[in-house]
Amino acid sequence: MKQIKSAVLGCTGLVGQQFIRMLDKHPFFNVAAVYASDVSAGRKYEDVVKWRVPGVAPEYVRKMIVEKLNLDSILNAGIKIVFSALPADVAGEIESQLRANNRYVFSNASAHRMNEDIPILIPEVNRDHLNLVSRQASRFGGFIVTNSNCSTAGLALALKPILRYGIKLVTVATYQAISGAGLNGLTAMDISGNIIPYIGGEEEKMETELQKILSEYDGKNLERFDVPMTVSCCRVPVRVGHLESVAVHLRDKVEIQELINTWSTFQGLPQKLGLPSAPEYPLLVSEETDRPQPGLDCYAGCPERARGMTVTIGRIRQKGNILVFVLLVNNIIRGAAGTSILNAELAVREKLISGTDIEADAMKQGGVD
Amino acid sequence: MKQIKSAVLGCTGLVGQQFIRMLDKHPFFNVAAVYASDVSAGRKYEDVVKWRVPGVAPEYVRKMIVEKLNLDSILNAGIKIVFSALPADVAGEIESQLRANNRYVFSNASAHRMNEDIPILIPEVNRDHLNLVSRQASRFGGFIVTNSNCSTAGLALALKPILRYGIKLVTVATYQAISGAGLNGLTAMDISGNIIPYIGGEEEKMETELQKILSEYDGKNLERFDVPMTVSCCRVPVRVGHLESVAVHLRDKVEIQELINTWSTFQGLPQKLGLPSAPEYPLLVSEETDRPQPGLDCYAGCPERARGMTVTIGRIRQKGNILVFVLLVNNIIRGAAGTSILNAELAVREKLISGTDIEADAMKQGGVD
Amino acid sequence: MKQIKSAVLGCTGLVGQQFIRMLDKHPFFNVAAVYASDVSAGRKYEDVVKWRVPGVAPEYVRKMIVEKLNLDSILNAGIKIVFSALPADVAGEIESQLRANNRYVFSNASAHRMNEDIPILIPEVNRDHLNLVSRQASRFGGFIVTNSNCSTAGLALALKPILRYGIKLVTVATYQAISGAGLNGLTAMDISGNIIPYIGGEEEKMETELQKILSEYDGKNLERFDVPMTVSCCRVPVRVGHLESVAVHLRDKVEIQELINTWSTFQGLPQKLGLPSAPEYPLLVSEETDRPQPGLDCYAGCPERARGMTVTIGRIRQKGNILVFVLLVNNIIRGAAGTSILNAELAVREKLISGTDIEADAMKQGGVD
Amino acid sequence: MKQIKSAVLGCTGLVGQQFIRMLDKHPFFNVAAVYASDVSAGRKYEDVVKWRVPGVAPEYVRKMIVEKLNLDSILNAGIKIVFSALPADVAGEIESQLRANNRYVFSNASAHRMNEDIPILIPEVNRDHLNLVSRQASRFGGFIVTNSNCSTAGLALALKPILRYGIKLVTVATYQAISGAGLNGLTAMDISGNIIPYIGGEEEKMETELQKILSEYDGKNLERFDVPMTVSCCRVPVRVGHLESVAVHLRDKVEIQELINTWSTFQGLPQKLGLPSAPEYPLLVSEETDRPQPGLDCYAGCPERARGMTVTIGRIRQKGNILVFVLLVNNIIRGAAGTSILNAELAVREKLISGTDIEADAMKQGGVD
Repeated sequence: MKQIKSAVLGCTGLVGQQFIRMLDKHPFFNVAAVYASDVSAGRKYEDVVKWRVPGVAPEYVRKMIVEKLNLDSILNAGIKIVFSALPADVAGEIESQLRANNRYVFSNASAHRMNEDIPILIPEVNRDHLNLVSRQASRFGGFIVTNSNCSTAGLALALKPILRYGIKLVTVATYQAISGAGLNGLTAMDISGNIIPYIGGEEEKMETELQKILSEYDGKNLERFDVPMTVSCCRVPVRVGHLESVAVHLRDKVEIQELINTWSTFQGLPQKLGLPSAPEYPLLVSEETDRPQPGLDCYAGCPERARGMTVTIGRIRQKGNILVFVLLVNNIIRGAAGTSILNAELAVREKLISGTDIEADAMKQGGVD
Repeated sequence: MKQIKSAVLGCTGLVGQQFIRMLDKHPFFNVAAVYASDVSAGRKYEDVVKWRVPGVAPEYVRKMIVEKLNLDSILNAGIKIVFSALPADVAGEIESQLRANNRYVFSNASAHRMNEDIPILIPEVNRDHLNLVSRQASRFGGFIVTNSNCSTAGLALALKPILRYGIKLVTVATYQAISGAGLNGLTAMDISGNIIPYIGGEEEKMETELQKILSEYDGKNLERFDVPMTVSCCRVPVRVGHLESVAVHLRDKVEIQELINTWSTFQGLPQKLGLPSAPEYPLLVSEETDRPQPGLDCYAGCPERARGMTVTIGRIRQKGNILVFVLLVNNIIRGAAGTSILNAELAVREKLISGTDIEADAMKQGGVD
Repeated sequence: MKQIKSAVLGCTGLVGQQFIRMLDKHPFFNVAAVYASDVSAGRKYEDVVKWRVPGVAPEYVRKMIVEKLNLDSILNAGIKIVFSALPADVAGEIESQLRANNRYVFSNASAHRMNEDIPILIPEVNRDHLNLVSRQASRFGGFIVTNSNCSTAGLALALKPILRYGIKLVTVATYQAISGAGLNGLTAMDISGNIIPYIGGEEEKMETELQKILSEYDGKNLERFDVPMTVSCCRVPVRVGHLESVAVHLRDKVEIQELINTWSTFQGLPQKLGLPSAPEYPLLVSEETDRPQPGLDCYAGCPERARGMTVTIGRIRQKGNILVFVLLVNNIIRGAAGTSILNAELAVREKLISGTDIEADAMKQGGVD
Repeated sequence: MKQIKSAVLGCTGLVGQQFIRMLDKHPFFNVAAVYASDVSAGRKYEDVVKWRVPGVAPEYVRKMIVEKLNLDSILNAGIKIVFSALPADVAGEIESQLRANNRYVFSNASAHRMNEDIPILIPEVNRDHLNLVSRQASRFGGFIVTNSNCSTAGLALALKPILRYGIKLVTVATYQAISGAGLNGLTAMDISGNIIPYIGGEEEKMETELQKILSEYDGKNLERFDVPMTVSCCRVPVRVGHLESVAVHLRDKVEIQELINTWSTFQGLPQKLGLPSAPEYPLLVSEETDRPQPGLDCYAGCPERARGMTVTIGRIRQKGNILVFVLLVNNIIRGAAGTSILNAELAVREKLISGTDIEADAMKQGGVD
């Protein structure tokens, strides 16, 4: 086996679990070590994890001893790529240290997202933001690539192909699953049979992250995409899948059929390169009257490895120049671990991960040229 | 006892149950008979009802024999006021017949809502629409007064006091409880742990009904309130309480504190008259960061008889001239049975119910003048 | 006002909230102060409580400053009766100290339940165990009376009237609501759409507490009721109401109609004395095929003040000498705060609360003489 | 392709969907046609099905036109094996007619379960009952093999290996998922956040079916297994997975470790033959304190094709000779479609399906020879 040695930081949480699940038998990466906070460290993974993602933890990870989160330990383990599912307050420092030690960090944490050298990358949307990493690499040795907040990921993917019609205003109301708050983020008494119309920091994140993601890269910096938005976030008693009700004021009135075509045929670099975790199409338009539904559409996407990477759009309507629709994004896969892995796959293919003469091989395993 | 003899049509459904609950010991009305479809008719109420509203059915109704829905039977029973919780397809004809026979119908059904002689009445919002009934009375003997769709009721109440700031556009996304679909409207497999982003006819109803409710009465007709709206309705796994995420483009930017004051102090004729089911304030502004919540705020309103009649508004924010907020309406009380009863109370106080020399007395029981 | 000055310890939790709700306008007791841990102390009750019981917190309590849990503070406040909803590990010491200072503690905590001088009291079941308190009073000045674990309360009430038929074996499987774990006892990810077939310590408590409760008081000590039991406890995604599926091996085969009569007519001392929180009948037999259901039967019991104090029994069947049935107990009311209050009411009526020459009056308010 | 031409009757229901899912790429069988009631017939499968089982319907079935349920149509289609997920009232006649026309019916319907010539087959438990089919075949040409009620399947598997310890009494309380009632069996208002302590006919079925399944085949007839049972069935708000709380009076006291070994190592003929849908072990003992849980353990079993075929046992305790434990069975897979398919696989391997000289080949595909 010649995959790149990788580690998962924050391995017991939901996103950490999803990393481990999606990295199982991955053609580019293997999970060489898993890290968590002191509570879990030193014990077998299977003894500390409350596994809540589909299927079961891979046997080899189940038997791993969870390592204590610690720079030296990661460096000594010969890890090259780090997938971070750490809480924001812990992630900031350790991710910077890893970068300073020639490691490549693909992070789901929000700590570094708004740093101007660090992209919030969704490869189908803003692949050229990956150029920012060379700046980091030359300065620090390694680099950090973040992926966005879970709700932002779905919205950015849906908006990207319709930027051409001129977006004047975006109004969003979200219906976010409890898994978005992590394993322990919500008590049962709070949310069972209830809605909580507030998610701390989420509305701000959706706005600032979206504006950064949709910015144009002018060859050196990001030129801020500036469009008014109003966002209202609610937590709903659903386990997985964030639904978003979106109204977009467009410059032009567009035929609905054209919108459907634009969305359904949308592809980006990951599709062209055939990256292992790239869905055939990142957007799926459902023409059923009552879709998407989290319970039915959360794992859209093919091939198998890309299930959950496709955002489903439905209920497309128009009122003058206002386009109204609903989208569904799998918050743990496309909105978290899946996009991080896709970002790492792209970085490998773009030869941004130095010191690995194993890529060619790994990439062949990925089925690409 | 001198209350006006009343009947509940569609007595076994959720709204029918709520009528029965709210009419218990009512100072103006008593439940003299209950009517339902053939399936239930002829059996004791307690043997056919699946009681799903708070508390238990009043003893005297539990023992009533459910009558078969039939014009003659209602006329012969000496019923003067009819509260209708019938399905729309059944309601149309029988309600018209009752009107033609000098009966006063307060209906939760949608059948007659858009008829130009028939008001969709929310007394705090459009009390002068009650003038339309004299036209009906002179032509038919009786009259029909409808109340709006459940989601519309909450929205109309929230928008009424801010009309003064000039409403340019309304964007709404709803989070509607399963009880809105009635006792049998949704299967458990469809909605448990899921969201359905579609409710048949609801979006159209919200738009057309709202425009009618907010119309100005020019002394003879309604002058249509014409404001662009986009509405997106979703069903969520919550039992009672419709939440709505609202963005309103205002002509003027208004201070948030002024909005809070405007909403919190809003009162209408029912409050002035001290109608039995009128809440002290029809709107309550919550300044908590994470309210309103269906599980916590669904029964807002006092006194006791008016619990569930107050709409709670929260999460008030502004973005330029765009006002963003969340509202919660009890779909079965303020959005259905409660407003119907309030409408009937108002009609009694306005002396629109002829042939009853008992009002004075009843009204004294209501504690007014 | 001449009610006895009382305090609620652990006022922000679910049981604490229920105490406050049930003590509102109570004829015997008033809430003179509320106590909680350091996190909440010093702030207004309405600012720290997440109110999750029906209705809203009484206005006067909403405005109270939560006191820090501390012996001196309670003593100085002139509190005579203490309702304790503290966690077991905190309750042990402070409850003992209060007893040593002539205070009367009615506790929902498990800390002292198995102490041989302290009764686990359910007045309809084992009123004579109240005799144990004189032993305490003479030794300590005050006394502690506990009420049982929530599931035990329902089971003890159901078994008491059929002891006469000779109980040989009791097999119980429970379906316990999430509120039984308190406000923060379960995460949403753990229990939403799931069952957890284990509740720490619960099975042991049900067995040992039941045996103590059903013991005979021989005038001095309790003579242990010794019957084999197997108990299996599960948590289910229901908010309030513990259901129990029970099989009882009886010495004799009994006619089902006789069982129904025995249960339905069962009354105890609280009913005879007309204690304010005593339900007319502590047991209700439902003969519907599919009852009791937590969603429908959780608040059984009348009058109003006693809602939730009646245990509902249903699905009575027999197989030879094995009696099979289902029972439902409101875990927060009959299983916790309600029984504590009933215990205190009984102690007042039995004149076990010394130094109050106000009882006569208070009792008249309770409508008893 | 040389698989045996098969059809799924009742293809739009939950069990029908699971049949289609599990038969996809099956080495022995292919789905040549799908049948449903008149409502769905004549339309594309993807247009009529509300797909609620994991993953998506196989592309080739999505495009199939649903056939009207009709004997001639099935006969003319050259179908040899029929998987029936019909409602009991429809299944009785058509299944008999198919048998009379040399077809082999593997049925999930209850219609024929208690017929003395027709086995209720769970191959790991009562493989020799398959002998009954020769009697049918000689009389009718074809045969019917049923599988048990969903809850019975789990219980029978758990009891089989411990029959050796002498079972004197079985007490069961179930926690059954809503999917057990089919797609439309329960309304959301009935079960959301609630428990219904009654499932029509279920308790009787569990008892009579279990006694038949555990009967001994004496070479000609079944000798009834006669053990007293009490069963209490409840519906809980969980989507998939029936939990059962079981107490078994054993003749002998057995060491818990011996029980664990007995259960964990239990295998039957399907395991020996390596049938495609046979799990490596039909029983899995979890030694965690709080397992099995429907949300975590519902899809236990390997290899991939056998996921959901393993019953998980946990919380093993003893009280004298009474053994107490909890089991979890996937009601749609092991409790329905999966066992039907396993039965058909066994029939093929036992050469009971005449006129197919393709078995050898198919079986090789199954990896056995």
